Amino acid sequence: MKKLSNLMDRIISRVNFNLRIFSIDVGDYLRGLVPENQLVKFYAFYGIWSNHPIHFHFSNSNLAGSCFLGRCKIDNSILYKCDIRGDELKVKGEVFHVDDKTLNVEEDEVIWIKDSLLVKTLVHNYSHNPEKLELFLIKNSASAPYANIHGSPIEGCFLEPFSTVDLTTLHDCRVGTYTYLQVGELSHIEVDAGWVWIRNKNLFDFNYNHPEDVLRKRYIAFVPGKGAMGMFMDFAEDRKMDFQRLYDVVNLESPIKEIPPGASINRYSVWKGKNHISRNVLVSQRAYLESSWLGEGANAQENCYISFSRLEGFNVTAHGATIIYATLGRKVFVGFNSFILGKADCPLTVGNESIIMPHTIIDLVEPVTIPGNHLVWGYIRRQADLEEHSMPLERLSKIKDQITIGRMRFRGSGDAFVEVFRQRIHHILEANGAFFDGETGRGHAQTGQTISFNIIQPYPTGEARGLYPTIDIEP
Amino acid sequence: MKKLSNLMDRIISRVNFNLRIFSIDVGDYLRGLVPENQLVKFYAFYGIWSNHPIHFHFSNSNLAGSCFLGRCKIDNSILYKCDIRGDELKVKGEVFHVDDKTLNVEEDEVIWIKDSLLVKTLVHNYSHNPEKLELFLIKNSASAPYANIHGSPIEGCFLEPFSTVDLTTLHDCRVGTYTYLQVGELSHIEVDAGWVWIRNKNLFDFNYNHPEDVLRKRYIAFVPGKGAMGMFMDFAEDRKMDFQRLYDVVNLESPIKEIPPGASINRYSVWKGKNHISRNVLVSQRAYLESSWLGEGANAQENCYISFSRLEGFNVTAHGATIIYATLGRKVFVGFNSFILGKADCPLTVGNESIIMPHTIIDLVEPVTIPGNHLVWGYIRRQADLEEHSMPLERLSKIKDQITIGRMRFRGSGDAFVEVFRQRIHHILEANGAFFDGETGRGHAQTGQTISFNIIQPYPTGEARGLYPTIDIEP
Repeated sequence: MKKLSNLMDRIISRVNFNLRIFSIDVGDYLRGLVPENQLVKFYAFYGIWSNHPIHFHFSNSNLAGSCFLGRCKIDNSILYKCDIRGDELKVKGEVFHVDDKTLNVEEDEVIWIKDSLLVKTLVHNYSHNPEKLELFLIKNSASAPYANIHGSPIEGCFLEPFSTVDLTTLHDCRVGTYTYLQVGELSHIEVDAGWVWIRNKNLFDFNYNHPEDVLRKRYIAFVPGKGAMGMFMDFAEDRKMDFQRLYDVVNLESPIKEIPPGASINRYSVWKGKNHISRNVLVSQRAYLESSWLGEGANAQENCYISFSRLEGFNVTAHGATIIYATLGRKVFVGFNSFILGKADCPLTVGNESIIMPHTIIDLVEPVTIPGNHLVWGYIRRQADLEEHSMPLERLSKIKDQITIGRMRFRGSGDAFVEVFRQRIHHILEANGAFFDGETGRGHAQTGQTISFNIIQPYPTGEARGLYPTIDIEP
Repeated sequence: MKKLSNLMDRIISRVNFNLRIFSIDVGDYLRGLVPENQLVKFYAFYGIWSNHPIHFHFSNSNLAGSCFLGRCKIDNSILYKCDIRGDELKVKGEVFHVDDKTLNVEEDEVIWIKDSLLVKTLVHNYSHNPEKLELFLIKNSASAPYANIHGSPIEGCFLEPFSTVDLTTLHDCRVGTYTYLQVGELSHIEVDAGWVWIRNKNLFDFNYNHPEDVLRKRYIAFVPGKGAMGMFMDFAEDRKMDFQRLYDVVNLESPIKEIPPGASINRYSVWKGKNHISRNVLVSQRAYLESSWLGEGANAQENCYISFSRLEGFNVTAHGATIIYATLGRKVFVGFNSFILGKADCPLTVGNESIIMPHTIIDLVEPVTIPGNHLVWGYIRRQADLEEHSMPLERLSKIKDQITIGRMRFRGSGDAFVEVFRQRIHHILEANGAFFDGETGRGHAQTGQTISFNIIQPYPTGEARGLYPTIDIEP
């Protein structure tokens, strides 16, 4: 175990050095979150398929419980139960558009995680930094449970629990608990807990901040030496055992007799109670489905929970989103780490094409109905809360300068904001195969049906206990 | 699948070329034995541990259901459900003794299988060819189910079902069904079915040949286009499903609450009914234990079956041996692929320190008792058969020139034969950890407790369907 604990020290000191202006010791926050016996016990796995270039390279690392697809290079890192895909990386020969310029992708892109400590973190998509087209780099960084690194190269960063960095390049930043950033590029900044910040060059700037005391007392707090606490953690921890079985069995039987055409259920997803899925539905790894109904082309992305709910079709349920006791119309989008907690007697109903912003908390004490074509953000417990936490997309489209509603402030072109969002939702559905007609429109739901998952484990004893051997897997 | 079937053709044409003087097409024998869907369905696995150097390299191969330990390099080969270990290979710095000379091992030895097609074959131990100290090479060769390649580098060979090549270097040879060879070196020879031939330089030469018609009609026949047939095959096939579960579950619970000190049960062994194992017992992968009692230091090696039997202690049950309804005294040795089929009302009893030669068939129609300190060979169905198929070791020790008993002929020094055999049995027990006292005498039973097994799978679709990616795993 000696080598592993040396590695841990080395990573922490590197992250701390990058973040030295903030005088933080990330070790105080993270050491307790990676129990040494778990690092030895859990296996990692990687997928082999013919639909995307693969190349896996792992050295001097622990990968406990993590999953890899595509091209991933992991050196001197500890990845504990992370979801790291590489099947959306750019491929040699593609053309990347940025503003009015085009850039040629000269080689297959790779996710490279170096000198980093990621805990239950999702790493996904591809580098949106046009300066590093072929490299999605995560270096000298640390992240806490249920953080999302989505299309975001980061160096010297510390991501607190349930934070999301989306399509953003970060240098030496600290991202607070339950903060969502989609801002292009940031460096040497501390962002407090509970911010939702979306900025698109000079086009628009959306921001909202969750009331700090509510967040900390009820939903999620992160305390040095004690870890992450609150309802978000309890919710995930309570369901942890349901995932265990998936890791015990090599080839699980499908939870339903016939998978509808174009649909796929990942073998590392949980299926409880009686669920219905329609054609072109995608259920990703570590998605959790319980007594729910998913219409055509709906997707349930990594780490999402959908229970006692009905999703009419073409729904996006983003990474880490939770949906309990809800009826969502067609094309309703539920963003990253949104937490919708209806109850049997206090359900949520959402009309077609509404957008639930990332990191929205809807924790109901009475039934709530959100009309179609609305933007929804922030913190909602009652119908009356909608007033300060939603608006019709049509109204938003007309905004040209700025608007402030409660704790939300929007500046710039509302029309551009709505348009960018709609395009992105369409793109996500397309990429996931929601529109597959049997011939064209193939996406993850279709290609994901034919992956073989392979298991790798660390040294069980000796000095290298807990470290994985050097592994290189090429086509 | 195209690449895989090209590979199959290429291997077969190479083996045929090496064996061209015999005008044989090994494809006629082997193609039907490797169903293409199995090649895609079964996963292979390798073990990671800290007790022995590891290095795995797999390229352009199918490895379905095969197992690897230590240092193994597999190129352009199809290995179907093979047991290939590498944990007994020589290690850099060791000294190898041959006659009165010593040779230094200059680098860690590697098993290298190239351009070969092995089906349900065991490859084991280390190269006993002192001319290639660091390389245990298997090239341009093909083998049929339940063949054993034990410490034997082979090039251009065809091993028929249940044949064993033990501590022997072979070039361009065909080894008949159920033939056992331990003869040092052979080239360009066809050995008929059912031979048991042990030759030690000028010291001694033991040979026995099974009656061909009995072997073919009752026990094992190998027919082009039809494969292997007979009681040996039926026996193994009947128990195939018992192994299936082992491959379905990632971490099986131990079949007993407390494993006695120094003992180990491989997770890929089958455990049926109520078994007892004592300290320092080794149960290897793909060993099959059913309602049996194993005394201190007994070992059950790969592919052996032990049912309704009692083994008093320090027993060696070699690879592929079958023991049903037998009571074996202390230090009884049962050689490779021996087939002991007692019945509840026709049991076999063997006294202490007797040696059942490799490839002995004991298929009882009445109870049979073999005294202690006897050598046993050939084909036994009744007590009276012992006359022509056994002799006291003491009597054998006194032979100085030659003796013929029934179909067995012995030439040379009986004393040397007995001495060499006893030393080998002692060495096997030692290597397997039978004499471990808690501190010294550590062997496979002790080191095997801490291996982590890792799963690898082939491409599930596309041109490369059934082929494994290029995999390289180093410490």
